[in-house]
Amino acid sequence: MADTPRPIITLLTDFGVGSPYVAQMKGIILSLNPHAVLIDVTHAIAPQDIAAGAWALRDVAESFPLGSIHVAVVDPGVGSAREIIYAEIAGRHYIAPDNGLLSCLAARTSPSRIVALTEDRFWQPRVSATFHGRDIMAPVAARLSLGLDASQLGVPRQRLECLPEPEVRILPNKIEGQVRSIDSFGNLVTDITSEMLVEVPTDERAQIHCDEHQTQGIFRTYSDQPEMTLLALVGSSGFLELAIVGDSAAAMLGVRVGTPVKIQW
Amino acid sequence: MADTPRPIITLLTDFGVGSPYVAQMKGIILSLNPHAVLIDVTHAIAPQDIAAGAWALRDVAESFPLGSIHVAVVDPGVGSAREIIYAEIAGRHYIAPDNGLLSCLAARTSPSRIVALTEDRFWQPRVSATFHGRDIMAPVAARLSLGLDASQLGVPRQRLECLPEPEVRILPNKIEGQVRSIDSFGNLVTDITSEMLVEVPTDERAQIHCDEHQTQGIFRTYSDQPEMTLLALVGSSGFLELAIVGDSAAAMLGVRVGTPVKIQW
Amino acid sequence: MADTPRPIITLLTDFGVGSPYVAQMKGIILSLNPHAVLIDVTHAIAPQDIAAGAWALRDVAESFPLGSIHVAVVDPGVGSAREIIYAEIAGRHYIAPDNGLLSCLAARTSPSRIVALTEDRFWQPRVSATFHGRDIMAPVAARLSLGLDASQLGVPRQRLECLPEPEVRILPNKIEGQVRSIDSFGNLVTDITSEMLVEVPTDERAQIHCDEHQTQGIFRTYSDQPEMTLLALVGSSGFLELAIVGDSAAAMLGVRVGTPVKIQW
Repeated sequence: MADTPRPIITLLTDFGVGSPYVAQMKGIILSLNPHAVLIDVTHAIAPQDIAAGAWALRDVAESFPLGSIHVAVVDPGVGSAREIIYAEIAGRHYIAPDNGLLSCLAARTSPSRIVALTEDRFWQPRVSATFHGRDIMAPVAARLSLGLDASQLGVPRQRLECLPEPEVRILPNKIEGQVRSIDSFGNLVTDITSEMLVEVPTDERAQIHCDEHQTQGIFRTYSDQPEMTLLALVGSSGFLELAIVGDSAAAMLGVRVGTPVKIQW
Repeated sequence: MADTPRPIITLLTDFGVGSPYVAQMKGIILSLNPHAVLIDVTHAIAPQDIAAGAWALRDVAESFPLGSIHVAVVDPGVGSAREIIYAEIAGRHYIAPDNGLLSCLAARTSPSRIVALTEDRFWQPRVSATFHGRDIMAPVAARLSLGLDASQLGVPRQRLECLPEPEVRILPNKIEGQVRSIDSFGNLVTDITSEMLVEVPTDERAQIHCDEHQTQGIFRTYSDQPEMTLLALVGSSGFLELAIVGDSAAAMLGVRVGTPVKIQW
Repeated sequence: MADTPRPIITLLTDFGVGSPYVAQMKGIILSLNPHAVLIDVTHAIAPQDIAAGAWALRDVAESFPLGSIHVAVVDPGVGSAREIIYAEIAGRHYIAPDNGLLSCLAARTSPSRIVALTEDRFWQPRVSATFHGRDIMAPVAARLSLGLDASQLGVPRQRLECLPEPEVRILPNKIEGQVRSIDSFGNLVTDITSEMLVEVPTDERAQIHCDEHQTQGIFRTYSDQPEMTLLALVGSSGFLELAIVGDSAAAMLGVRVGTPVKIQW
């Protein structure tokens, strides 16, 4: 990391927007490396929703430069036998509990290195049983940002814990996925990628079903349809998305994460 | 900007507090300029409420040093024919969709330069149709912060798109404005400026009406009246404000943005 | 502060998450010291809840390095006779209205210096009556971060304003405290410290009562009990905490700040 003049450390947690717990982590990091650049990814992950955290992290991580250090804390098992791990994935560094929080990332690109954090000399002198984000992950991130080699952090591991991934089924003239995330506009982001859509017509022959709701065609952007219309498009992260122009599709349709989405043509 | 050791880039969006979309913009900016200082103005603008964004931006922008770069993304027309523009106003740099988001600022001080962003070599290599904040505005802001001259960004423009501005009527012994913003304390900020109030008596001869509610006098600060009293004062941005001491005037009175406010004396 | 390459200034307010008022303070600080590192502690303190602000500040402040400057603005008396004070406590610098906001900190460690801010040459040229956070506290923090000696800020004071502190009663085989804070997970943080618990058995002989609810034993971490169980543990800040595993104790039990908590053994 010698070539990064100001090392970037990002934080993603389920601590809630405005929680002072985040600032405690930042204080620890800055105590060790006052030159770290601290960026909040989000702290609005629903409490203990590992799957939502994994999805958000996957979405954001690669917008950051190579060498960035991403710390993710959604940790219902804090203080239990679950390990805390370091992983290097696609040139970026991750520190998280080994509970599936990195599984969306690792499904896209295999980690080039995984280390279980066992070397407590890199941790805070006193480690609480309930806040390893502050007492283990924050100081380890700070030390990595100062140039510590990750191999020193502990014991190599071969694989990460993975969440059961809902499957996208690709059939002749049919794709079956699900809503994976709802963004702040109420848009329904599915797990159907633009690559899966290559052979799907974008005109009205494409029938998209979500719960009992239905729309035709895959558009380019929101303003391609009049207000209050349900439309489908490929969103900014490369996934099929359902939106109601000028309103919240999630609220209007009463749809939640996990709802099946089907394209037929 | 050679004299600014750490260039400041601020972000104002309607992405919602805690949205990871903001972090995506920050990642892109830091990838191009790791020395940029990133400051959140607010991400709590109601979805697609351009007028609220324009008001907030006007309120905050000039607290920042000359040379600061303000990026504002409230962009219901993303991907449509609306342009993205650069404007220099009062020594600060603005990047926003040309949809009225800069109109409150431009109404105060005429822009000294306006450029439509057309030079795509300064954008991300791949531009999505739905997230120009990340793919166009963020990289352009980063490049400006590195010293790129704004004239290179595209085509000069003569004027900015403007929102229809509600008018303040100044009559003999009467001023008629409206509530323009509700702050986080529930205070009702109007568009009546302290300059307009120069001839208004501050004692009980000044009758202030808001909807069916009424109060007398213009006070100096909240604690000049007892708890639970409706009072008027000139707020910290220089606008007449109605507040209920120790509570939320917006919630107590059921008042919204746009409600007429009248002063008579 | 000559040895701190990038001086840290933290901000704690009741302005609300997403309020642009925070950005106004940051703009003023960066105008004076572009090298300041700005960290948000929280802006989600309930409006004008000085006691909650004092508790959060106490909890977070000492995670930051020596020399950090903490600015706290929960200021219902803004513009009134209440003073704004600088205090040095345990090697960190504090700027706040003198209304009790520093009382939890000062109860732990006596301030080594207190100065009432009276020297208006260190303030903004124009000081509003309603936003001293921006017009007095922000510029003073910036100037301290540039090396200004705190003694120049105004008039020495002997003591800080203190909030009435609810008392923890320690009796033979009984401790009586109260819920002092509810965190973002809905955990109930009490004012009973780990030091007070030294003689309390951690097994089922320890009976903990909160309102009409009851649990036995003091555990190490959340995952020591099955989901949906009420459990007691010592939390990450060293206080007895009541939690419902995998859910919000505050919501499930309907408990608020101030509810008595009793341990008997």
